[in-house]
Amino acid sequence: MSIPTSPFEIRQRCRAGQFDAPTPGLAPGFVQANLVVLPYDLAFEFLVFCQRNPKPCPVLDITEVGDPQPKLIAPGADIRTDLPRYRIFRHGEFVEETTDIRPFWRSDLVGFLIGCSFSFENALLDAGLPVRHIEEGKNVPMYETNIDCIPTKRFSAPLVVSMRPLLPNQVVRAVEVTHRYHRTHGSPVHIGSPDAIGIRAIENVDYGDAVTFCEGEVPVFWACGVTTQTAIIRAKPEFAITHAPGHMFVSDLRDEDLTL
Amino acid sequence: MSIPTSPFEIRQRCRAGQFDAPTPGLAPGFVQANLVVLPYDLAFEFLVFCQRNPKPCPVLDITEVGDPQPKLIAPGADIRTDLPRYRIFRHGEFVEETTDIRPFWRSDLVGFLIGCSFSFENALLDAGLPVRHIEEGKNVPMYETNIDCIPTKRFSAPLVVSMRPLLPNQVVRAVEVTHRYHRTHGSPVHIGSPDAIGIRAIENVDYGDAVTFCEGEVPVFWACGVTTQTAIIRAKPEFAITHAPGHMFVSDLRDEDLTL
Repeated sequence: MSIPTSPFEIRQRCRAGQFDAPTPGLAPGFVQANLVVLPYDLAFEFLVFCQRNPKPCPVLDITEVGDPQPKLIAPGADIRTDLPRYRIFRHGEFVEETTDIRPFWRSDLVGFLIGCSFSFENALLDAGLPVRHIEEGKNVPMYETNIDCIPTKRFSAPLVVSMRPLLPNQVVRAVEVTHRYHRTHGSPVHIGSPDAIGIRAIENVDYGDAVTFCEGEVPVFWACGVTTQTAIIRAKPEFAITHAPGHMFVSDLRDEDLTL
Repeated sequence: MSIPTSPFEIRQRCRAGQFDAPTPGLAPGFVQANLVVLPYDLAFEFLVFCQRNPKPCPVLDITEVGDPQPKLIAPGADIRTDLPRYRIFRHGEFVEETTDIRPFWRSDLVGFLIGCSFSFENALLDAGLPVRHIEEGKNVPMYETNIDCIPTKRFSAPLVVSMRPLLPNQVVRAVEVTHRYHRTHGSPVHIGSPDAIGIRAIENVDYGDAVTFCEGEVPVFWACGVTTQTAIIRAKPEFAITHAPGHMFVSDLRDEDLTL
């Protein structure tokens, strides 16, 4: 069967159980989102956590309680079936991965769709800037930092960052380009000096894959949506669902719809 | 007694019952905010309404349930005492205006501080653009439009806009300048043609004061925080508190802290 190309087609194939692969590179130009599903009794506090930490946690859409439709970014979609893979958490522990969360669905669940840095990677490439993990066919390198997010009573996390190596004379352009994508992480949070943000060795990633540095390149760090997963695991909710890493929700929004 | 000049001094004088006047023009350069206080059982849905309508409802801070301190934008402040005047609503009806809401405070209340267009008016003036209601010593003209905000189950409202007349050759600069203030309403929502957004006669304001148009000027409309008050009144919560019009919360944030 051919690789699905439109957001609608991707979601339909997921729904039919015909597609369960990672989504990077699919439907270029369309916004892919992180999924977080929580019980209603945690929903307000989680949304406050996101409001306090908008760079790592840029909320794009929130479903009505018990309703799986993300009406703002993909009317007609169903978050229970339209992602390739999901992860189920009980009391903060990962318990299983699945391709369909309908058996787990409850009337008190709320879905949050959160922006992802895929949205600005095409813009970096269009600007002639390298995106090393794409060049090397790897997952983006990600690290926990020593920067604390602004907490709520139950949600707290270190800021998790993604990293892309660039030459010093490319850094300003990268800031200018990604600054426009303020609804999907936006501009970098740190440039160079990984030790200054608690990263001891750049080759020791916490998530994703290490990538190659070319001569003279410096690491540039952006806020990363894995921060939300870290906050959820720490809060130990009795029940939570997220997308499986790299298996995102593909929406009908265009990356350019979200720019400044 | 002298007019208070710093945000802290203003809040302290309000707290001491020594200041109950409007706040436009006070502590220039510091962010003034709308206040909405709602019971916890409506807080999540109200925050979702704001997330869906960020231009009229840009949330700057949210207090912990039952805690009157806005820790992000004015640590140490108390939203029950530190505004000059408040309005109390029961079942969506305005019942009284007061200078101290401590007698009404409950352990289930949540405070929302929401951005205000005062934050970009200095920038317009700095750019050499006129702000007519300031020139004429009036309140900004505001209108209900025929544009519906994206609703939630209980919160819905027409978009309310503020209006500032400008010459056609000033409009682009006004868009560029206010675009940067994306956390306090940002760029305009409409330019010219008031009838296209349901405003039949520009001299018939719904809130605030009508202002003079000079020869050749066109109306430029920005999203306005009065939208939140309209949504709250329509939702008829059993209890709600807002700031009294023009009597804002003066925070320790600088307008420039909130720009792009």
